[in-house]
Amino acid sequence: MLTLVLGGARSGKTAVAEALAEAAAGARVYLATGQALDAEMAARIARHRATRGDGWRTVEEPLDVARALGRSRPGEAVLLDCLTLWLSNLMHHDRDIAAETAALLDAARACPAPVVMVSNEVGMGLVPETPLGRAFRDAQGRLNQQVAAQADRVAFVAAGLPLWLKG
Amino acid sequence: MLTLVLGGARSGKTAVAEALAEAAAGARVYLATGQALDAEMAARIARHRATRGDGWRTVEEPLDVARALGRSRPGEAVLLDCLTLWLSNLMHHDRDIAAETAALLDAARACPAPVVMVSNEVGMGLVPETPLGRAFRDAQGRLNQQVAAQADRVAFVAAGLPLWLKG
Amino acid sequence: MLTLVLGGARSGKTAVAEALAEAAAGARVYLATGQALDAEMAARIARHRATRGDGWRTVEEPLDVARALGRSRPGEAVLLDCLTLWLSNLMHHDRDIAAETAALLDAARACPAPVVMVSNEVGMGLVPETPLGRAFRDAQGRLNQQVAAQADRVAFVAAGLPLWLKG
Repeated sequence: MLTLVLGGARSGKTAVAEALAEAAAGARVYLATGQALDAEMAARIARHRATRGDGWRTVEEPLDVARALGRSRPGEAVLLDCLTLWLSNLMHHDRDIAAETAALLDAARACPAPVVMVSNEVGMGLVPETPLGRAFRDAQGRLNQQVAAQADRVAFVAAGLPLWLKG
Repeated sequence: MLTLVLGGARSGKTAVAEALAEAAAGARVYLATGQALDAEMAARIARHRATRGDGWRTVEEPLDVARALGRSRPGEAVLLDCLTLWLSNLMHHDRDIAAETAALLDAARACPAPVVMVSNEVGMGLVPETPLGRAFRDAQGRLNQQVAAQADRVAFVAAGLPLWLKG
Repeated sequence: MLTLVLGGARSGKTAVAEALAEAAAGARVYLATGQALDAEMAARIARHRATRGDGWRTVEEPLDVARALGRSRPGEAVLLDCLTLWLSNLMHHDRDIAAETAALLDAARACPAPVVMVSNEVGMGLVPETPLGRAFRDAQGRLNQQVAAQADRVAFVAAGLPLWLKG
């Protein structure tokens, strides 16, 4: 059972995803792709961690999320937060995005426990001014489409409220 | 009865909010948070004012919207347009956003007449390049979530068409 | 029968629009407003062309889409992809946007075959920093509202999945 939770920045998508994971299983792993590389990011991670309830185990994995997904314990729901930071890490480390995406989707398919993935919608502003910005926006859009195609459920979140696009 | 109308720039959210206020009460106050500080803004305000029908009283209040809400006349619906400019004014004047938001929500709860608030979705583009841009985007997202949580109805508007997220 | 397919960049809106056109008629014309002015754009056009199935005739028309719409053959569905590049071309050539929009909507009304138009949502990021950026965002929002008002159906697409705002 794969669920994609899509939304803008600060749309409340992580809280929606947490509630979905909590409804799915008593034990959960929070698979974090963000890294505390600067103070702003560290504060954001600490804030997220503080608002999560009990029953969560945290795993930090900036790149090899497919492998981390493969290591999830039986009966433990996985919340992958988020695909946007993962994609950014992949691009930063010059990884093959198509191959990594295929591996992630294979791992999600093989995972016996429920998986919830969080991702950002980043394509509803003006065209980015830099080639890198446009490349990132395009890669994020393609990734969201690929995950949504395989997902059983897709929610679009605005102001903390989910709208179901699928499922 | 609190309604939040959320949408992108030029999405037609003000027209949707005006129709909701007109359906709710014969007399309405248009609580404007924008100030005509430059020619572009003045033109925008004049355009909005010209398209409003009869039955509207206009109050301009860039900061103390809670107080203005408290002064609304009995039976008069209030359209607060918009939370985004209000937030921008708060940040510009270095006000305490959490305290001001709490005061606004208290005033909305206490208001006997229907209240419609308009706000922008600003988090669906790439990550802003400046710390101020990121701070604004985050504050706007948090504010939208807080208002939506208290609202009886929440509409997401695109191309002039409302999609109800709540209510 | 006019359908508007609205979405962010890389949201899968063209694929959704293609499927709608294919369901509507056996013969289709792909009315392309994009021009291969640089390598990035040429690659994007070639990619789109390669993913289209059989049964499509391609017409490239950066500006006079109303005239091109008038020339569509009987029984042939038209996919106009996209209004955003068209608007950008109009602004670049200093055309009268209001007059061109009226002509486009007249041509769509007069067209006996189904018409599907693709457009971008560009107003859900922060306020653009340049006057040109703000002018484009505003013109795009107004155009989307005008087309949506006349359309029989309006879909909002995210991650390849349509959400019907109308119809």
